[in-house]
Amino acid sequence: MSQTIDFYFDFASPYGYLANIQIDAWARDRDCVVAWRPIMLGAAFKAVGTAPLLSYPLKGEYATRDINRTARALGVTCLLPDGFPHNTLAAARGFYWLADQNEDTAKDFARAFYHGYFGEGRDVSPAEKTADLAAGLGVDRAAFLAAVKDPAIKQRLKDETAAALERGVFGSPFFFVGDEPFWGSDRFDQMARWVETGGW
Amino acid sequence: MSQTIDFYFDFASPYGYLANIQIDAWARDRDCVVAWRPIMLGAAFKAVGTAPLLSYPLKGEYATRDINRTARALGVTCLLPDGFPHNTLAAARGFYWLADQNEDTAKDFARAFYHGYFGEGRDVSPAEKTADLAAGLGVDRAAFLAAVKDPAIKQRLKDETAAALERGVFGSPFFFVGDEPFWGSDRFDQMARWVETGGW
Repeated sequence: MSQTIDFYFDFASPYGYLANIQIDAWARDRDCVVAWRPIMLGAAFKAVGTAPLLSYPLKGEYATRDINRTARALGVTCLLPDGFPHNTLAAARGFYWLADQNEDTAKDFARAFYHGYFGEGRDVSPAEKTADLAAGLGVDRAAFLAAVKDPAIKQRLKDETAAALERGVFGSPFFFVGDEPFWGSDRFDQMARWVETGGW
Repeated sequence: MSQTIDFYFDFASPYGYLANIQIDAWARDRDCVVAWRPIMLGAAFKAVGTAPLLSYPLKGEYATRDINRTARALGVTCLLPDGFPHNTLAAARGFYWLADQNEDTAKDFARAFYHGYFGEGRDVSPAEKTADLAAGLGVDRAAFLAAVKDPAIKQRLKDETAAALERGVFGSPFFFVGDEPFWGSDRFDQMARWVETGGW
């Protein structure tokens, strides 16, 4: 039976982008199913007492270098759009609205967002731009725009974020193989071993 | 010609311990020489605005799990001594005093400290205990104890820590391959590729 990997990420997270590049092939090779779960990391930062990674002196400069180096190793670019980081609420809300109808479309939307935002370095975070991405996947543009303002969808994202925090998620990307948590785009090897062996 | 890898670490760092377990075989396989450089991370935490990893809620709990999981994957234990983290000034000072006489003895001392502290979970941080470890390597115990109180050695550690910070070191373990920085005990694969290819 396929194992489900929970993949939590923030749409404004460069390491989330790097994980999104790798996870599909990784999961396919291991007959795993991935449950994509965008969250707003701000709530976790408050709970933990941390701040966005790139805002720290020294650590932020290193992270920028590490992100670019890792991207190059993966054969992709990671470009930070002008004004990074942006508010990615519309993308996260739109994702859940799409997922309620068709999980695959929601994943395609997430990949398209990440590709536009970090792959091409374009600020696709405004609601109108996220709606363009969704429309490019055949989604009704007006319905998407209405959804991201829908109180029920807003609450849905808050609930997903709260549930993630409750589960111990404090960074992006963050994975669960069963109940085992893995943080970071550099934990695919350990996760592979966990999937194969059932843990150690 | 052998390439030198700079290996910065804090004696109270569990991930530094995990790196110390791996680095000798890693370097030997690649004909690299390792320059061990203990520092006191407190200065870096102040500069960056961070705190010791395990002091954060959620993040600290995850890190404890990740450290143990990684240790088990390496076939070793990582035990935090009662009262962790301790002040490891004596060990760091003693290291530099030893290194000025014999680099290999200093490395043996560092390995012995890490093994006692995390491998066996014993608080070997007091000056008297570090002197015991040094004596076990054939070092004059009284001379070692005098050295860790020597103002020149105290200053030496301050200078090494300041130089590391100047170079961008903000965590433990932290490596340089030439001028390229790598942070974390999970960057050995990237470092290997860097050594082999000269960078990408």
